[in-house]
Amino acid sequence: MNKYTDRRQVGVIGFRGYSGAELVRILRRHPGVEPVLLEHRSDPAPEVQPLGRTPLQTIPATLEAIRREQLALVFLATPAAVSIELTPGILETGSVVIDLSGAFRLRDAETYSRWYGERHTAPELFHQAVYGLPEFYRDRLPGARLISNPGCYPTAANLAIRPLIDAEVVDRSRGIICDAKSGVSGAGRKASLKTSFCEVDENFSAYGFMEHRHVPEVLQNSGLGEREFTFTAQLLPLHRGILETIYVRTQRIGTAVELLAIYEEFYKDEPFVRLYAPGKMPDLRAVQHTNFCDIGFIFDLDSQRATVVAAEDNLVKGAAGQAVQNMNLALGFPETEALL
Amino acid sequence: MNKYTDRRQVGVIGFRGYSGAELVRILRRHPGVEPVLLEHRSDPAPEVQPLGRTPLQTIPATLEAIRREQLALVFLATPAAVSIELTPGILETGSVVIDLSGAFRLRDAETYSRWYGERHTAPELFHQAVYGLPEFYRDRLPGARLISNPGCYPTAANLAIRPLIDAEVVDRSRGIICDAKSGVSGAGRKASLKTSFCEVDENFSAYGFMEHRHVPEVLQNSGLGEREFTFTAQLLPLHRGILETIYVRTQRIGTAVELLAIYEEFYKDEPFVRLYAPGKMPDLRAVQHTNFCDIGFIFDLDSQRATVVAAEDNLVKGAAGQAVQNMNLALGFPETEALL
Amino acid sequence: MNKYTDRRQVGVIGFRGYSGAELVRILRRHPGVEPVLLEHRSDPAPEVQPLGRTPLQTIPATLEAIRREQLALVFLATPAAVSIELTPGILETGSVVIDLSGAFRLRDAETYSRWYGERHTAPELFHQAVYGLPEFYRDRLPGARLISNPGCYPTAANLAIRPLIDAEVVDRSRGIICDAKSGVSGAGRKASLKTSFCEVDENFSAYGFMEHRHVPEVLQNSGLGEREFTFTAQLLPLHRGILETIYVRTQRIGTAVELLAIYEEFYKDEPFVRLYAPGKMPDLRAVQHTNFCDIGFIFDLDSQRATVVAAEDNLVKGAAGQAVQNMNLALGFPETEALL
Amino acid sequence: MNKYTDRRQVGVIGFRGYSGAELVRILRRHPGVEPVLLEHRSDPAPEVQPLGRTPLQTIPATLEAIRREQLALVFLATPAAVSIELTPGILETGSVVIDLSGAFRLRDAETYSRWYGERHTAPELFHQAVYGLPEFYRDRLPGARLISNPGCYPTAANLAIRPLIDAEVVDRSRGIICDAKSGVSGAGRKASLKTSFCEVDENFSAYGFMEHRHVPEVLQNSGLGEREFTFTAQLLPLHRGILETIYVRTQRIGTAVELLAIYEEFYKDEPFVRLYAPGKMPDLRAVQHTNFCDIGFIFDLDSQRATVVAAEDNLVKGAAGQAVQNMNLALGFPETEALL
Repeated sequence: MNKYTDRRQVGVIGFRGYSGAELVRILRRHPGVEPVLLEHRSDPAPEVQPLGRTPLQTIPATLEAIRREQLALVFLATPAAVSIELTPGILETGSVVIDLSGAFRLRDAETYSRWYGERHTAPELFHQAVYGLPEFYRDRLPGARLISNPGCYPTAANLAIRPLIDAEVVDRSRGIICDAKSGVSGAGRKASLKTSFCEVDENFSAYGFMEHRHVPEVLQNSGLGEREFTFTAQLLPLHRGILETIYVRTQRIGTAVELLAIYEEFYKDEPFVRLYAPGKMPDLRAVQHTNFCDIGFIFDLDSQRATVVAAEDNLVKGAAGQAVQNMNLALGFPETEALL
Repeated sequence: MNKYTDRRQVGVIGFRGYSGAELVRILRRHPGVEPVLLEHRSDPAPEVQPLGRTPLQTIPATLEAIRREQLALVFLATPAAVSIELTPGILETGSVVIDLSGAFRLRDAETYSRWYGERHTAPELFHQAVYGLPEFYRDRLPGARLISNPGCYPTAANLAIRPLIDAEVVDRSRGIICDAKSGVSGAGRKASLKTSFCEVDENFSAYGFMEHRHVPEVLQNSGLGEREFTFTAQLLPLHRGILETIYVRTQRIGTAVELLAIYEEFYKDEPFVRLYAPGKMPDLRAVQHTNFCDIGFIFDLDSQRATVVAAEDNLVKGAAGQAVQNMNLALGFPETEALL
Repeated sequence: MNKYTDRRQVGVIGFRGYSGAELVRILRRHPGVEPVLLEHRSDPAPEVQPLGRTPLQTIPATLEAIRREQLALVFLATPAAVSIELTPGILETGSVVIDLSGAFRLRDAETYSRWYGERHTAPELFHQAVYGLPEFYRDRLPGARLISNPGCYPTAANLAIRPLIDAEVVDRSRGIICDAKSGVSGAGRKASLKTSFCEVDENFSAYGFMEHRHVPEVLQNSGLGEREFTFTAQLLPLHRGILETIYVRTQRIGTAVELLAIYEEFYKDEPFVRLYAPGKMPDLRAVQHTNFCDIGFIFDLDSQRATVVAAEDNLVKGAAGQAVQNMNLALGFPETEALL
Repeated sequence: MNKYTDRRQVGVIGFRGYSGAELVRILRRHPGVEPVLLEHRSDPAPEVQPLGRTPLQTIPATLEAIRREQLALVFLATPAAVSIELTPGILETGSVVIDLSGAFRLRDAETYSRWYGERHTAPELFHQAVYGLPEFYRDRLPGARLISNPGCYPTAANLAIRPLIDAEVVDRSRGIICDAKSGVSGAGRKASLKTSFCEVDENFSAYGFMEHRHVPEVLQNSGLGEREFTFTAQLLPLHRGILETIYVRTQRIGTAVELLAIYEEFYKDEPFVRLYAPGKMPDLRAVQHTNFCDIGFIFDLDSQRATVVAAEDNLVKGAAGQAVQNMNLALGFPETEALL
């Protein structure tokens, strides 16, 4: 019945968190793999929603189990500190690791400790970690052993900004401003007054600025310098979705269509980036529960002001979906398998 | 300028919780009192929203401070265990206590420990505690020293049920069913996975049944027996408001207007109960941010089935507003002062 | 690559409504069919969210087009009046019809006009319409020409009630009460003050009682009489999901496990009904974006009171998902194709 | 009992809209006035929530009635076209007009028709209309006959921007960006697919840019030129509240405290502007149901970047509350009466 002759087993640690549960949901639709739920002490909460008619078995997240089950790949949907602790051992079992935390996203251990405020105990792994943004680094993914899945905010920001930087049409002296808004699931599944219903519902607040851990990820992958990029992270009273309103001063752009052409050229073969006609803007509804990142803009010729809007589902293209996209590329499945 | 020659000072312990903060908001509009914020270790969280242009001073919640400030009355918006601990001492200072917890709502210490699962350490106070539902017990409130403010669910349930019981028009052999729905603020202000945004938002769940602590409060004040009353508590994805859909089999009711007349007679002088024409139902919007409890119903003559809907704001008529109503009656202010 | 040698084309009229769009989303994941969007003047609104990287073509909803494209089946996600108008012609093209409206759900034209308030202009079709609730009528679906997809409220109510009626464990003299709550998408996609954001958000209201069009659908398929069933329809401030709290007096039930056994026997081979252990209740999160109907209950032995909770996604098991389940059975696909 | 010897009657046209209903709610708390509800054909919807235990009488909105009732003042919570039609007649009755629409906010009839897309039929009134932003134009309000109540977005934007412009600390060559987010009540009370629950809930979208009617209001009162100001209006999935994130490049600012001092000097006597310590930001919760506009900021000395956040309740400081503030000033009441 299945187009794949056999299914490869892949593990998920942290399957009770929002990203982890989303990952399991996607993997269950994937004809080429079978998810194995690996129970770990860091898992946020005992109760989970049923994930299907036949619940999946869980086994303890030990190296022995990973070896015994011959897991081709293990996803880590865990806090950075847990990912750092687990990754070296899992790599030794021969399994590929896709880490959804920030543990290996930055350049090196020093940058990590500057932004995450703690020492990195596996600095030797930075050189082999591939930053899993396929639209930029697709050719590094087949055969990669350790893939660092991008942060939710940086995914949308980089996809929206980098084509303009590469085309050298940004007046960088004016800086780029990214006013970002995210649903609450981005904060993870845990008891916290700040993300409790009555604090968030019917509310909206700015909570992160230039000190946000996602800022260096944008800088590193967009080509912008720290003083060229201004960032605000804001909390939307909704479950899932990120929308970023990005303010750019362009140079040498003659028409809105010219600006669109830059994006079209950059993303012409990309299955998960959708571009909108000038003046049309994506909203969150267009991308929720999908692996798309949608980009639209308005452009004022006289003043060379462009307002770019990028939207994605923070749990899909911003986390679990992109992780499966990376798995597909790393293990040799079609890139869009289980994602359309 | 003020119609009262001087303002009396009243204390609030637990002013950072949702009921406590609502209480302070109402008290600031009251021309006859001045709220004093009493800082207590049990207070749920350090950060509060600004409560006005001029923030109120806070002082430690000590008996000494209560004496020194000559507080006429102290509101306890604290957990039951804290209320039990604090009440005896405050009463000794000569201050009146209005307790918003369940500490003194039930008949006696045994009933308390059956439903609250812990021993009551101030059983001697039960005999002086007045259950502060003015619509039923108004004459006991002037001069009361300890007022036990009713629970949010029982306030609406009792106001909807008791007039029918007293008029003996309920077929009690069929039982009364109360399908209750509440906003999340009813759970209090604290970090908890169950009331975190992503668990509650776009969700709806039944979480409490006949074991709910509010059941005995309904039985005690409505005249119903345990087997005559079925209760379900459910969580609405919204901040404030309770709506109860109550199913009754009547007897000897000839027309919907006759049923309405029973309520009209019972509530004819009540400032905070609003009745709807037969077939019209209140929704939460009608009562949010008000001290009203609204009651509507539909009635099928042939089958003698009545579906009664009662709505209130759980933080106002279900907590802080009713507490101020009780204070007005206890201290001799007009009952509606600061509440319309 | 595909397990089906070729894909059959199926049409969707009303693809811009919430049920219609959900249907297209599910059909795009179905390996055996190809959805064709049929543009009809009754369609609620010009703008739709992008439904994928490659937008689907739309063609006018004419009989000629249905013939030309050789559509195996046409889904009608249209108002009842439009379905009545379109069905006879489509059936003549040889295409199967699955109608998501109430046009053919009731017994006959008189019952229809009593509840829908308008004359039925295709009464001759009632005798061939199959009520598409596979859990009850699966054997009538293969080869059916006209399938009437059940209403959202009746699907959950019937699945929760009928096993108990069939087992004769309900004290019918006490009646069954169904306190139902639905998300707003159940009202369809149209401009209306009643379903506008500021009227619904943070609100909750009862809006339908025994006159609701879904009542006769429950009676017809559960075996209950009109006076044995009390119904309330209420509007939740959320997008999708129905939860029904159902109050039953049982007879001759010895233990909660015995009650569960009745459900287990009834649904033992059903892929889309999930049962919970006694005392565990489904919430909306468990079923949203799935084709499951989840059922849980609590039971009090002494008083023989059972409170049953049934939950489903009104757009999936309550509409589009069930429609695809029906299509799978009618056209000979595995019943769960595209639905797990 | 009342501190005012008698209450003056004030009319409200458009009392069924969100701003109009809020206005009535505030006016009922005002000891110096008595609201009179004037029924007008433009009123959006027949049903309103009960506004108190004793419903207010409504009378037809005729000039005769306005004369007969000797209304000191009439509030127009009507669309601009209706306000333009009604204002001349009402002024002739001797009543003061406070108009909450955009009819008289701009400089003159030509500017009006450029932004509102229709001819202005009462251009002679522009010269006597006072723009009712008390923080800027307080001295023009006592004795004013026609007060044009500011738009919701411009109120927050102007309060946040103008102190910096006046102090000449803005590098205007870099432009000011205002990324604005509003709750849905800003769109008014009407049936519309765009503001229907299922389109807005769990969604977020950018819907207005430099063509938005509020842009010229900001320019006119802040001192900025069209190319110096970039604006985005975005829709939050919540009822009430506006938060604007404003990006400024400063010049010659030595410390964050220096920046704060500019605001403190500007607003030192203002009862309804609250300033936050550097690094602290207001959220919507802080201002909902209040007449405050709260302002906070972060400042990076090296790059002279300031991110300013201004928050208000669009129905209060952004509409009805500010209208009462204007009434208080126009009729000689204390400015904060009924607003604290």
